[in-house]
Amino acid sequence: MTEAGTLTIDLGDRSYPIVIGPGLLAARERVDACIRARDVLVVSNQTVAPLWLAPLRAALAGRRISECILPDGEEHKTLAIVGRVLDALVEARMNRDCAVVALGGGVVGDIAGFAAACYQRGVDYVQVPTTLLAQVDSSVGGKTGVNHPGGKNLIGAFHQPVAVLSDTGTLDTLPERELRAGLAEVIKYGLIRDAGFFAWLEEHIEDLLAREPAALVYAIRLCCACKAAIVARDEHERGERALLNLGHTFGHAIEAAAGYGSWLHGEAVAVGMTMAAEMSARLGWLGRRDVGRIRALLQRAGLPPDPPRLGRARALELMRMDKKVASGRIRLVLLEAIGRATLTGDYPPAVLDSLLEDTVGKVA
Amino acid sequence: MTEAGTLTIDLGDRSYPIVIGPGLLAARERVDACIRARDVLVVSNQTVAPLWLAPLRAALAGRRISECILPDGEEHKTLAIVGRVLDALVEARMNRDCAVVALGGGVVGDIAGFAAACYQRGVDYVQVPTTLLAQVDSSVGGKTGVNHPGGKNLIGAFHQPVAVLSDTGTLDTLPERELRAGLAEVIKYGLIRDAGFFAWLEEHIEDLLAREPAALVYAIRLCCACKAAIVARDEHERGERALLNLGHTFGHAIEAAAGYGSWLHGEAVAVGMTMAAEMSARLGWLGRRDVGRIRALLQRAGLPPDPPRLGRARALELMRMDKKVASGRIRLVLLEAIGRATLTGDYPPAVLDSLLEDTVGKVA
Repeated sequence: MTEAGTLTIDLGDRSYPIVIGPGLLAARERVDACIRARDVLVVSNQTVAPLWLAPLRAALAGRRISECILPDGEEHKTLAIVGRVLDALVEARMNRDCAVVALGGGVVGDIAGFAAACYQRGVDYVQVPTTLLAQVDSSVGGKTGVNHPGGKNLIGAFHQPVAVLSDTGTLDTLPERELRAGLAEVIKYGLIRDAGFFAWLEEHIEDLLAREPAALVYAIRLCCACKAAIVARDEHERGERALLNLGHTFGHAIEAAAGYGSWLHGEAVAVGMTMAAEMSARLGWLGRRDVGRIRALLQRAGLPPDPPRLGRARALELMRMDKKVASGRIRLVLLEAIGRATLTGDYPPAVLDSLLEDTVGKVA
Repeated sequence: MTEAGTLTIDLGDRSYPIVIGPGLLAARERVDACIRARDVLVVSNQTVAPLWLAPLRAALAGRRISECILPDGEEHKTLAIVGRVLDALVEARMNRDCAVVALGGGVVGDIAGFAAACYQRGVDYVQVPTTLLAQVDSSVGGKTGVNHPGGKNLIGAFHQPVAVLSDTGTLDTLPERELRAGLAEVIKYGLIRDAGFFAWLEEHIEDLLAREPAALVYAIRLCCACKAAIVARDEHERGERALLNLGHTFGHAIEAAAGYGSWLHGEAVAVGMTMAAEMSARLGWLGRRDVGRIRALLQRAGLPPDPPRLGRARALELMRMDKKVASGRIRLVLLEAIGRATLTGDYPPAVLDSLLEDTVGKVA
């Protein structure tokens, strides 16, 4: 059996472990070590709960456990749903020593984490992520929150978990398409900071697609460590952390244009990364051969290569809503090489214009 | 004219000033120094806004100002109302550099501060408290939040203000009864930590009732400094901070039994402090003479001396819901002397029983 790996996120007195491995939920002593609270509210959704709630309950045996099962989907990531989790905490008479355990993907984690941040001004929060995206992305950074009709993730809090249990076995029940979308974020880490990891992915992408435990543990651990290193230097998102948004400015525009839900986040990010690579090549920063490697890896991961034809004007309009816009200028995360990303607003606008015309079309 | 006093709350990179003085809202340069943001959402209520919004708007001239005027009253301190403030922030397209300014009493501050904590995971928050209670109590400690049908202040966040502007002139429009209720908390600080201040209050209580600016500035500054010293040693409320709850365990029971709103918080706390003093005397900790001084001062402040006859059993039941209960034992803040409070669960239950019988009655 593949060994579990533990990574400690060093945040002083808020430090916490990320335990990664297959079959973790069956390892009582590991769960006990991570979850100290005697009173636990498990937050999950209607898709994940039938699959993984019973094993988690077994792992938590001996504790007082309540449940709050939410509807599945990003459209339910609202302040009203957070109210439902808070109601469940009150109803179960949870006190300050309780823990909120999020069992599910990023949406469940964002909601549960925000409820934990607000209940009695902050109670323990444990993540049990069951999607690849959540395991590589939500485990580090402390962001929690919900959407507002006016924008994604506008309401929330920074609230670090006390532990993350990433059981790679839970990925066995993840739909193929979501696994592939998660791989987009995995590839992103190679692109922004680690050429060696990108090369490793070129060797092992099929192992990941086959959900081979050792490959998954290696990749997830490396992504979490990479994100932790970036976040540690920029906890409140002023500079370097923006690099984590490689592919996201284009990607968010695609998601928004298509209507949330029709494109998965990772799919849109994959296309966005291809566009960022292409833009970098047109600026003379990145060789054509590297653009080819990036396209090829994303394609082998089964990710879409091209954006929808939403038209240049609409794309620009949507990109302008990005949080990285400064003084009206769209700032992009671009690549100086595979493994080296940079945030810049310093490019000729005509290059962006022609890139958009060639990819999303002159008009819709 | 009385000089304004400034107190700096030392919290490292979250340090902030509390400026206290008459006519502060007319002093543009002071307001400018405290509120750096160009985009401001002022949160107030229907009682305070007609009185003080125009002066505040004038003081903020040159900024982009939006308003969110809430209904008045503790019963509106809900998660739904926070949603309204968040809607206002989104609607006004406020970005991360905005500031939320709370103009009003503790309820407005709690709601606005919590909304500021949640909007974009935290934006600046400025307090302009217009009640004595808010000026002495809410200015320090960083607590924000709302009530849940299951309990008071169950939902919230720790979010420090970037500045507090306590214009003692705003107390001129405060109803007499609310001024007196605020004085209960002022007297509390003398009782828990500062015998000299208690003696000063015995000399100057009528000056405070007459809203004499110099006396108000002195008392507010001292209360804030006292709370700051306690909170600094116990930011997350494990030990010493509990002393701030002198009179509150009895007081909350009175408020809850009477139905929130019929007793003002400060009135209930005043009675609670009298009961705590009486209990301390019966345990032999406090002399009868001191109990008399406490009763006399509260009476001169126009505060009620006796609790309603809710009956011993009901009082105990309500007191058991207190957050200080540990292992089923009701812990009380009691007095070892005027100026020296202590938290204890170590007393003969019969003493509490007989105290309750003698004050709230054997049966309702």
